[in-house]
Amino acid sequence: MNLSIRQATEQDIPAIHDLVVELAVYEKAADQVSATVEDYVKDFSENHFECIVAVYEKEIIGIMLYYNTYSTWKGKMIYLEDFVIKEAYRHKGIGQQLFDEFLRICKGKGAKMAKWQVLDWNIPAIRFYEKNKALIEKNWWNVKVSLVK
Amino acid sequence: MNLSIRQATEQDIPAIHDLVVELAVYEKAADQVSATVEDYVKDFSENHFECIVAVYEKEIIGIMLYYNTYSTWKGKMIYLEDFVIKEAYRHKGIGQQLFDEFLRICKGKGAKMAKWQVLDWNIPAIRFYEKNKALIEKNWWNVKVSLVK
Repeated sequence: MNLSIRQATEQDIPAIHDLVVELAVYEKAADQVSATVEDYVKDFSENHFECIVAVYEKEIIGIMLYYNTYSTWKGKMIYLEDFVIKEAYRHKGIGQQLFDEFLRICKGKGAKMAKWQVLDWNIPAIRFYEKNKALIEKNWWNVKVSLVK
Repeated sequence: MNLSIRQATEQDIPAIHDLVVELAVYEKAADQVSATVEDYVKDFSENHFECIVAVYEKEIIGIMLYYNTYSTWKGKMIYLEDFVIKEAYRHKGIGQQLFDEFLRICKGKGAKMAKWQVLDWNIPAIRFYEKNKALIEKNWWNVKVSLVK
């Protein structure tokens, strides 16, 4: 499979947004996505996030979207916000290639740790992270306050 | 109680580190804190985080440490990494004053949402967040990969 992995550019934003929505549908949360393609374009230009994309025959079939963040316990940290492989392309090792590239980038940034979240019922994802020797913590709850009406 | 709340400066970093460690002890995770005062000074100077402090009689008795982050569902988001009131000063409303100031700052930054985490057994904190009408999500697990030996 002739796959390439590269940093996203502004031209990739609509495809990235599509894959974020595809993941939100899978996570039964499509109604929670209010950020638009236009928001992404603006926020990407202001460096609020970075993204690597997996490209097959000129189509974006996978993304890992992440940003710099901070752990007061460890120091510089990367947060992985979205990791999506288009449904038709799963179980082909593409996720592993993206994940390996992501860890390479994190190390290059001098980050002490990478962190993300997984839904407690998403068994395929949990197995993938366990296979990659990630630490899974089940005792923290998320707390959120919406700042818009 | 003559309390003032203000943005942290570099001079406050040792006191901030002390309070992060005090919280980590309470969270039974003191052994996980490897970031030092020197790390904080460098990372603060590089804008990896911001912090507001509650000051009483020239002593820092409370902190909220946060940074800009991103939600692909909502857009610009603030992550609250640490929220600590020194033990002797709890139950005096100081946390509420800090929390109100934190939300004011988040709105001023144009953030769509503020997010943080709480341990599932930390009932006083959970009650505080419920009282403040925060949404608590119990179905996400944290996943971490350490990038240092």
